[in-house]
Amino acid sequence: MSDYKASLQDMNFVLHEVFNIADDWARMPELQEMMDADTATAILQEAAKVTEGLIAPNARQADEQGVSYADAKVTTPDGYKEAFRQLAEGGWVGVTASPELGGMGLPKIISAQYEEMMCAADISFSLYPGLTAGAIIALDSHASDELKQQYIPRMASGEWTGTMCLTEPHAGTDLGIIRTKAEPQADGSFAITGTKIFITGGEHDLTDNIIHLVLAKLPDAPAGSKGISLFLVPKVLVNDDGSLGQRNAVSAGSVEHKMGIHGSATCVMNFDGAQGWLVGEPNRGLAAMFTMMNYERLGVGIQGLGAAARSYSTALAYAKDRRQGRGAKATQDPNASADPLIVHGDIRRMLLTMKAFIEGGRAFSSYVGQQLDRAKYAQDASEREAADTLVALLTPIAKAFMTDTGLESTIHGQQILGGHGYVREWGQEQWVRDCRIAQIYEGTNGIQALDLLGRKVAGSRGAMLQPLLNDIQATLQQAGPAWSAESEQLGQAVELVQQLTAKILSRVGDDENIINSLAVEYLHLLGYVIYAYLWLRMALVAEASGSTDTFYAAKVKTARFYFAKILPRIHGLAGAIAAGSESLYAHDEGDF
Amino acid sequence: MSDYKASLQDMNFVLHEVFNIADDWARMPELQEMMDADTATAILQEAAKVTEGLIAPNARQADEQGVSYADAKVTTPDGYKEAFRQLAEGGWVGVTASPELGGMGLPKIISAQYEEMMCAADISFSLYPGLTAGAIIALDSHASDELKQQYIPRMASGEWTGTMCLTEPHAGTDLGIIRTKAEPQADGSFAITGTKIFITGGEHDLTDNIIHLVLAKLPDAPAGSKGISLFLVPKVLVNDDGSLGQRNAVSAGSVEHKMGIHGSATCVMNFDGAQGWLVGEPNRGLAAMFTMMNYERLGVGIQGLGAAARSYSTALAYAKDRRQGRGAKATQDPNASADPLIVHGDIRRMLLTMKAFIEGGRAFSSYVGQQLDRAKYAQDASEREAADTLVALLTPIAKAFMTDTGLESTIHGQQILGGHGYVREWGQEQWVRDCRIAQIYEGTNGIQALDLLGRKVAGSRGAMLQPLLNDIQATLQQAGPAWSAESEQLGQAVELVQQLTAKILSRVGDDENIINSLAVEYLHLLGYVIYAYLWLRMALVAEASGSTDTFYAAKVKTARFYFAKILPRIHGLAGAIAAGSESLYAHDEGDF
Repeated sequence: MSDYKASLQDMNFVLHEVFNIADDWARMPELQEMMDADTATAILQEAAKVTEGLIAPNARQADEQGVSYADAKVTTPDGYKEAFRQLAEGGWVGVTASPELGGMGLPKIISAQYEEMMCAADISFSLYPGLTAGAIIALDSHASDELKQQYIPRMASGEWTGTMCLTEPHAGTDLGIIRTKAEPQADGSFAITGTKIFITGGEHDLTDNIIHLVLAKLPDAPAGSKGISLFLVPKVLVNDDGSLGQRNAVSAGSVEHKMGIHGSATCVMNFDGAQGWLVGEPNRGLAAMFTMMNYERLGVGIQGLGAAARSYSTALAYAKDRRQGRGAKATQDPNASADPLIVHGDIRRMLLTMKAFIEGGRAFSSYVGQQLDRAKYAQDASEREAADTLVALLTPIAKAFMTDTGLESTIHGQQILGGHGYVREWGQEQWVRDCRIAQIYEGTNGIQALDLLGRKVAGSRGAMLQPLLNDIQATLQQAGPAWSAESEQLGQAVELVQQLTAKILSRVGDDENIINSLAVEYLHLLGYVIYAYLWLRMALVAEASGSTDTFYAAKVKTARFYFAKILPRIHGLAGAIAAGSESLYAHDEGDF
Repeated sequence: MSDYKASLQDMNFVLHEVFNIADDWARMPELQEMMDADTATAILQEAAKVTEGLIAPNARQADEQGVSYADAKVTTPDGYKEAFRQLAEGGWVGVTASPELGGMGLPKIISAQYEEMMCAADISFSLYPGLTAGAIIALDSHASDELKQQYIPRMASGEWTGTMCLTEPHAGTDLGIIRTKAEPQADGSFAITGTKIFITGGEHDLTDNIIHLVLAKLPDAPAGSKGISLFLVPKVLVNDDGSLGQRNAVSAGSVEHKMGIHGSATCVMNFDGAQGWLVGEPNRGLAAMFTMMNYERLGVGIQGLGAAARSYSTALAYAKDRRQGRGAKATQDPNASADPLIVHGDIRRMLLTMKAFIEGGRAFSSYVGQQLDRAKYAQDASEREAADTLVALLTPIAKAFMTDTGLESTIHGQQILGGHGYVREWGQEQWVRDCRIAQIYEGTNGIQALDLLGRKVAGSRGAMLQPLLNDIQATLQQAGPAWSAESEQLGQAVELVQQLTAKILSRVGDDENIINSLAVEYLHLLGYVIYAYLWLRMALVAEASGSTDTFYAAKVKTARFYFAKILPRIHGLAGAIAAGSESLYAHDEGDF
């Protein structure tokens, strides 16, 4: 197996040359106070060392060993405990938490790179600090000052971890029908009773305490999603002096045996009158959860990117080393009995498809990260609002498109190794299995698509597309004659999006099924167009750099590849979208 | 987990109503003598019982347990040995072997249905009899009468199994560079020495003997693929009286740990001067192997179909049963807190995509099967030749397209179950893992595409497409006004194929990389067009039937779905094909 190497050069290109973080941050004093661009760059260099040296080496063994469960206790794979300890010691658990609560205060555009490295190194392991960071955000935004002070610093330091307990056996996507109950107690706390499933890191041996954020219903709660509240339920109760007290009435009933992410403990959690505290307003739990959803969903998208990046590095090394057959053009190496795989067109097609998705995805996650930072730190309210709108539009695409292209990429990365990609030894099949979950959890990709087309695009009558279209227009206007073909292609793609959007909007009134039936293809259409925009933007920057580093020439070549070979996929999607909902609803239940 | 149920109604529809096997066989006396249509139907009904009751129940447990290896011995999962014994007893191992050598003499169009059932039941298990059937074909076509009489009856009866030993550690696809040697011995046999990897069923505990077909080089062999010979090497030597003698010098060095097909023993085989016998002419081993390739490759394509069919049955049952959210159109069940998943557009999209690929694939494998039968049994030489040409064209498409759509289908089938699709308990993730290998072995799908576009289409300057285009035209001429939109769509698709083919052919002389660079997209393009043809053909038959059985109405609806939602994908492929090879060869090795 190739060792993992973080793509620092590309990350720095994206951060400094494409998204100009120094300029951007100069307009945001609150951010600038916590972090400057040079420090961020240095932090990423350190992050590369940590993920390459500390996290990545455990991934294969952790997959083989998995987590084990006995007597309500979960044992993580060998090496995880020590790796987590060192990670916490280095301050890498609380990277996004604010400095006054013990975090590093890293802007999202930077932490997005760190998350990519963590996911490329080991998605399973990344979930323990990742969920903790998510829980911190929810608490920071909604919990009382008392709860914040009591819990966040010890989560940000990695002394404790966090979870999110949403799903129940009968209720996955549909949180409106959860049954977990919260009974008010005399001391102002609540007794939480119910069963949650698929709880990532619900129990483990990495830390002494685990802080569960739990969705539950108050006794007088209205039915459906407007009757859900959020509670903080620690595994071990915390005394007033901060010391750990009694064990709370929450425990893991079992762990799931899964296709992948074997090192991640996915638990059934039983709450038997466990003591918990309300976070935020009663019956506003879903809103509190949604605060961190935009962060989390980008994070899950980045899992697809990380898996693809890890797979690419092995596939590329193999394609250069392994000799099979002869190139079509000419024998490359007459002294050997065969040429390296990389001379073959189909191997190049697969490698370049991966490369286009990975570097495009890196630019995309950075684009969303920058908007998240602007939404939080921009001084001008209208800039914050515009960024917020763009984030709302892009988030479901980031989650779904980066994981769908992530799976496609890991499948290519496996295919390049042939039979050696199918055996476990090389690791390529693990990245497929590990990546696959990211299309499912944190809201399935189908749900993301509904959110995009239903709530965002149709919900705004198309208005929410405008900030994105403005950004694309700005890049199109910068493109010189060397990019006239690609500019025209992108311009036509944007027109196609507008036409199809208008067509869908015109049918919403007459056809209740239209959103529902086209959402996934629509999300993919936008995803391919956004990557085309980002590839053109990167190509223009690379060309303007005047650098003789082959990195810049390669960037331009990969941009050309994307326009030639990947963007045309939108025409297949457009056909399916134009066909409407009719053929999906003609079948009666017995016809299937 | 849902129990597996074979799709007998659809198989009978395809065999009797779409492909009219009774009429077809009436023109082929040699076939008719062995088998009539009624008997074939009865055999499939028995096959359904065997695969549903004997094979399918082992699949999940076999995946968990896997094969184990110790001291050069391989133990198969619990239940496999007894299942294989009963299968052999029922005559199901030698289904395609000729009756005079102990087989059932089943025509390929029938055995294709049986193979689908076997693969849906358990791909891992299916490989033991499947490889045996393949070895029988190679021996039947090329071995001396003595070898045939000595080995085939006992393989057809399931007393012994067969393997194919091609791949070596340094040579996967590129068989020209194998190193295994065959030294002639005084008694006319050969001493075989070398190491083979990825040998399916190379060692196991199901039978007392295993007959290996091994590619090796004679001492004076020319370099490359024209210097390869085929040898029969039994695990245990067979005495003249047919009793088992000494153990031969061949043994399993280890078994691979793989992503899936855990119940299949994938072995490293060491030949240490093992005694073998030449099969066919010296240095003509690859040609002998290719005899069975058309059969085997269709069989591997059917693995994709089988996995998809198994996944669909569970996904459909789950979608009808599981309640999440409310349908867009109206609440379906006001008495429950949520509607069944099947009301949701995206769930229907995934189910119908699977259904369209499965029923389209079933028609496709039957279409190829019918052509294989005609190529073998037709009285008229020109009919045999036309069928042979069509088989040569369709085989790489069958192998690659049925496995690519098979993987897509199993991924949909997993996605429909959400998180429950990712945990092992439900089995949906197993069909993904088991299906994945079929895109890799027996020539990767990239190699299939090269065979199609390079050897077949470009090699014949497009002439080999003609029999297929004739078949499509015949169906287009039968389509009435109710199918005018779909006919037009299919007609345009055929034109697109012709235009793109002409364009590629016009560039072959100037661009050595053109075939290499476009082959995969070209294969997919043809695959989608062939499925469209078969869907139109099925729809016309269903409509003409006049039956009130909802099966026929559903067939028509699914055909409409295919044209509305799946066929448009060709426009994405066409764009990538039209873009040529340039963007794939711009990158220097260091640019990746």
